Amino acid sequence: MTSSAPQTSPVLDTARRAREAAAVLAPLPRTARDAALLAIADALVERTEAIVAANAQDIAKARQAGTAESIVDRLTLTPERIAAIAADVRQVVALPDPVGEVVRGSTLPNGLDLRQVRVPLGVIGIIYEARPNVTVDAAALCLKSGNAVLLRGSSSAYASNSALVDVLRDAVQSAGLPADAVQLVPGESRDSVRELMRARGLVDVLIPRGGASLIRTVVEESTVPVIETGTGNCHVYVDEAADLDMAIEILINSKAQRPSVCNAAETVLVHAGIAEKFLPRALEALTEAGVVVHGDAAWQQAGPGLVAPATDEDWATEYLSYDIAAAVVPDLEAAVTHIRRWSSGHTEAIVTTSQAAARRFTQLVDSTTVAVNASTRFTDGGQFGFGAEIGISTQKLHARGPMGLPELTSTKYIVTGDGHTR
Amino acid sequence: MTSSAPQTSPVLDTARRAREAAAVLAPLPRTARDAALLAIADALVERTEAIVAANAQDIAKARQAGTAESIVDRLTLTPERIAAIAADVRQVVALPDPVGEVVRGSTLPNGLDLRQVRVPLGVIGIIYEARPNVTVDAAALCLKSGNAVLLRGSSSAYASNSALVDVLRDAVQSAGLPADAVQLVPGESRDSVRELMRARGLVDVLIPRGGASLIRTVVEESTVPVIETGTGNCHVYVDEAADLDMAIEILINSKAQRPSVCNAAETVLVHAGIAEKFLPRALEALTEAGVVVHGDAAWQQAGPGLVAPATDEDWATEYLSYDIAAAVVPDLEAAVTHIRRWSSGHTEAIVTTSQAAARRFTQLVDSTTVAVNASTRFTDGGQFGFGAEIGISTQKLHARGPMGLPELTSTKYIVTGDGHTR
Repeated sequence: MTSSAPQTSPVLDTARRAREAAAVLAPLPRTARDAALLAIADALVERTEAIVAANAQDIAKARQAGTAESIVDRLTLTPERIAAIAADVRQVVALPDPVGEVVRGSTLPNGLDLRQVRVPLGVIGIIYEARPNVTVDAAALCLKSGNAVLLRGSSSAYASNSALVDVLRDAVQSAGLPADAVQLVPGESRDSVRELMRARGLVDVLIPRGGASLIRTVVEESTVPVIETGTGNCHVYVDEAADLDMAIEILINSKAQRPSVCNAAETVLVHAGIAEKFLPRALEALTEAGVVVHGDAAWQQAGPGLVAPATDEDWATEYLSYDIAAAVVPDLEAAVTHIRRWSSGHTEAIVTTSQAAARRFTQLVDSTTVAVNASTRFTDGGQFGFGAEIGISTQKLHARGPMGLPELTSTKYIVTGDGHTR
Repeated sequence: MTSSAPQTSPVLDTARRAREAAAVLAPLPRTARDAALLAIADALVERTEAIVAANAQDIAKARQAGTAESIVDRLTLTPERIAAIAADVRQVVALPDPVGEVVRGSTLPNGLDLRQVRVPLGVIGIIYEARPNVTVDAAALCLKSGNAVLLRGSSSAYASNSALVDVLRDAVQSAGLPADAVQLVPGESRDSVRELMRARGLVDVLIPRGGASLIRTVVEESTVPVIETGTGNCHVYVDEAADLDMAIEILINSKAQRPSVCNAAETVLVHAGIAEKFLPRALEALTEAGVVVHGDAAWQQAGPGLVAPATDEDWATEYLSYDIAAAVVPDLEAAVTHIRRWSSGHTEAIVTTSQAAARRFTQLVDSTTVAVNASTRFTDGGQFGFGAEIGISTQKLHARGPMGLPELTSTKYIVTGDGHTR
């Protein structure tokens, strides 16, 4: 492809090498890519000591900087965790190969054979925060789908990521593939991210994984196409016709089973027709689960002293904590209107025994996933049976919802004739 | 969805109204959308006089500005052309409905039912140049696929587009759909394009259709996701094992059947092993077709005085005229390397009798379409049997190659359980 970025810099040079590697990877058969992944899994285990030593530098730096222990824990690699990461890579090997799948095919009226075939995207850039396991996960999924990957992790994990990428590159090379199929983006400063975002023509897609501000920055500044991931302001709507036991279970599971993740619920909306029965039970269950309710007037009235008053900020917030916004709505349509206004379009659930309500809700709600009588927590590549997940896209182009291997591919048309002309 | 653009302006207000209309359109059944399209077709014919009168203003303005007659012709609407546009709308009615298609579905091991269903994208912005027929084509395809559309045509066709959009809106409303499903972006200045490009959260995708500079501007400046269309620096590679009669036919058809379109060939690459036989015949045929050859040393030697010397600029140029760049390459791999360097990734053809060469070329060339023993001119939604085409995507995300109705949709997951929790 003609590149409109003739400049040179360490980041652009990295991207150019990735492009060359991608051209080598694309026509390789599955066996070659799988062999590289198996070599990676072996090498991670074999070189555990070096990885843990590099990780210790990051940990020391983090502690020195007064980083919270919960974040230090996310940063930490132990031999057990490295073994688990290697096991995950072996699972990726076992997944079906998306490359080469014929998506569509027919013989045209003039006798031309038309086939639309899945091909790798080319060069995928992943920009991510703290956890160094993402380095290996992302590289494995990109390699499996025939792509070269540019990894730009958090500067707080730079030593760990460097050590991991060294291991990955050596393993890829030992399997006969170009080492440049896996590269760490050089530089720990923000400038290297900025350069990556302007490398249109060299990088085919950027996938930011991390907090909302990282994602917003990439979306706003990148000229490379971006797949937006992960912001989840998810809703549970308890319909007038809900089974209240089920509603409590789904609400508590959606909110409190793991509040720090994007598919956790952040708001509960309750039909006015069952509010009187449901609110006291919900307040009891939420309080017992350690959840603070930020409610509208109806919720405040149902739990005097228990419920903090909700403002527009609460409707907009992805708490990622033991907090939930709560409102009573006059009907299903009002719930949909609230969701349309405030949701990030990730996952919304309805609890209802009414087939008509379920159908109406799934038709009207425009989010990556609409759950009927199921927890919001199911929106996940693993849960959906994709075997792996590079992130959850909350945009509508290319991929929406949990992204597995097919979402890391594009297609091309192959047209075969016998001298056909128009 | 939460919008990060709280400002107000005529363009943003238009986008907000489109968003409201999209929410109404999305759950409508096919019959409702088809009825609106039929009303549009009828209204275009009925109100031909008003459309032609508005078009006359644009024509007068264009002539006054000394516009070339070929462009004035593209701008001109006659009763016959309007009838043809209406007939095209009726054809869109007959196409299969992409909305609601179940793309993927299964019952998960825990008993949850998972379905991935096609849904409209929402609000589609089309930025396009001169030809006012695009106004109707684009609106029809967007409505058919359940989307609201924001049309931003050339200021040189503003009167025509305004008249057409008036007709479309009235027809849409008469069929019971919101008129704001079809809107012209207000303002004739570049500022309105700029505002549209920053309306992230209100507009789901922008599709620029037109010249390379328009497309580049949108790609560089838009924070709304963009589908890049239409730049075609297409190649014909004549392999050592080519049938030379077939090669001549395919070359001439690819270059000269309609040189002004994106799927016309711009460069011919010839294997050194058949250059001596092929070049004189090709030069004769190209010259006879009125094509000027810009060749490398081998071509210049084959046609002394006939061949202009080619520079890097020729390899990079999408002539869109009776010109072609020409080179001799040592082998298929060198042809692929040339294509990888200079192609816009639209369409490349190989002419060969060798199955191995055909297979190698289709594996190595990474373009939207790779043609084997067929003209580059087949890369087209109509030719591919899609029934309609909103453009030809030359990017890898979301859509690649000719875009039909399914490419104007996204998907959502519907998860149905009986109180499932994790």
